[in-house]
Amino acid sequence: MKFGFWNLGFGIWNFLILCAAFLAGCTQQTTPPVQTANNTLDKMKIVDLTHDFSRETVYWVTAKEFELDTVFAGVTEQGFYYTANDITTAEHGGTHIDAPIHFAEGKLTVDQIPLESLMGAAIKIDVSEKALQDPDYLISVDDIDRWEQEENTPIPDGSIVLFYTGHSTYYPDKKKYLGTEQRGEEALDSLHFPGISPEAAQWLIDNRNIKAVGLDTPSLDYGQSKNFKTHVILLSENVPGFENLANLEQLPASGFQVIALPMKIKGGSGGPLRMIAIMNP
Amino acid sequence: MKFGFWNLGFGIWNFLILCAAFLAGCTQQTTPPVQTANNTLDKMKIVDLTHDFSRETVYWVTAKEFELDTVFAGVTEQGFYYTANDITTAEHGGTHIDAPIHFAEGKLTVDQIPLESLMGAAIKIDVSEKALQDPDYLISVDDIDRWEQEENTPIPDGSIVLFYTGHSTYYPDKKKYLGTEQRGEEALDSLHFPGISPEAAQWLIDNRNIKAVGLDTPSLDYGQSKNFKTHVILLSENVPGFENLANLEQLPASGFQVIALPMKIKGGSGGPLRMIAIMNP
Ligand SMILES: [Zn+2]
Ligand SMILES: [Zn+2]
Repeated sequence: MKFGFWNLGFGIWNFLILCAAFLAGCTQQTTPPVQTANNTLDKMKIVDLTHDFSRETVYWVTAKEFELDTVFAGVTEQGFYYTANDITTAEHGGTHIDAPIHFAEGKLTVDQIPLESLMGAAIKIDVSEKALQDPDYLISVDDIDRWEQEENTPIPDGSIVLFYTGHSTYYPDKKKYLGTEQRGEEALDSLHFPGISPEAAQWLIDNRNIKAVGLDTPSLDYGQSKNFKTHVILLSENVPGFENLANLEQLPASGFQVIALPMKIKGGSGGPLRMIAIMNP
Repeated sequence: MKFGFWNLGFGIWNFLILCAAFLAGCTQQTTPPVQTANNTLDKMKIVDLTHDFSRETVYWVTAKEFELDTVFAGVTEQGFYYTANDITTAEHGGTHIDAPIHFAEGKLTVDQIPLESLMGAAIKIDVSEKALQDPDYLISVDDIDRWEQEENTPIPDGSIVLFYTGHSTYYPDKKKYLGTEQRGEEALDSLHFPGISPEAAQWLIDNRNIKAVGLDTPSLDYGQSKNFKTHVILLSENVPGFENLANLEQLPASGFQVIALPMKIKGGSGGPLRMIAIMNP
């Protein structure tokens, strides 16, 4: 008995419908894009969120500034070219990370921070409209609330939260970026730059589940802070901070990821950070 | 005139075929796995390929070793805990990057290396069986050929190529890892560790398209090299090198990606590197 495919009354017309439907199913593959583990990063657009280290690099007014000593640069006796340098830096200067122990005794040192909390989905809260008008601007719970209204979602669990104040526009002009070109203890009262209010920091800890925070100013706390309460609130909960970030204006409000890889200083309270954002092109 | 969907002789039987075919098309989505931009990294397994920086960190015998000076650690007058350090290091020590300019005049400094060439699909060539028997082992073209035979593919275009010698097992025991505990010029002749042969380096440049190379020894060239020819070959072609890598034994031969983010030293010949591998769990 013949019992083939075409004998079931399955003519050419049905076959064409089948093909069309199959292809329609297939085309759904393209949203969201399929990416194998091997080519994901190679297809991503990359934004470097890092200022470079040089004599221009902005440090806290009481911190040791960046130094580079050239050990050798030129052609060696053996006939090949060679150059190498030594560097000295405070952990906290330029684009860097604050490890929890920086303001919270017994909490994580920079080498102990799990890499998982330094990379992954991120959001950007743009407060530049107000912060560029007021060098003492304090990022508020209202600013976070506005992002959630506009994005129509609470900050997703496990997000890295970046605040864009627009202050990076002034970098590395110390007068505009820090509020003063002076250095030393006597310059502390002249520091003026935006930061995260202790209320906003506490609200994030109490109401949202975030991995880390970052911003484009010299400090999580604003320039006029004397008690560094925002640092204490966030770091006590093992939420690291990224300071002096660059190029945040190139990021969307959501839909991107960040990778923040600090120098692995054993026992360090922080350190030089290379941080990037990646997104679909 | 009625001319609807069902009037074209399109009965329930055809409709079921259509649905089945559509679903068959859809299920193809699950191989390879679909990952949105936002959750890719959050779902990845991470391996840290970085040794930490401390007094134990292995440096070239003539290079300045790592120093950490504690500026403050304790409770401040204002009543909060605070700690911070200054650090000094040679660019080339511990887990670090060699920028092209290190051995190639006029080539890229570390801050100029495009981030695209420091991240993406990577492969691991395991030469540990021979290299653990011979501290002067030179990685050969045959070793690369064996990987390509076993993986049944040439090294894919744009790969980052890592060599696992097994030498990281000895880290930070300087006698075993470098070949000597001595320091200074007089220790140079006592350096014994594996490296990449100039022939293998030249073969990679001539025959494959690679982004960067890395290995778990102190140098791209083996300990007994006097002319650093492998450095010159690779760096002259703007192919950066990663040295003193850790945890390569945890990586498969292929099917993973790496992210290598060096400290962004303006004009630097290299610098401290935080490097990780990511892969599907
Ligand atoms: Zn800091
Ligand atoms: Zn080096």
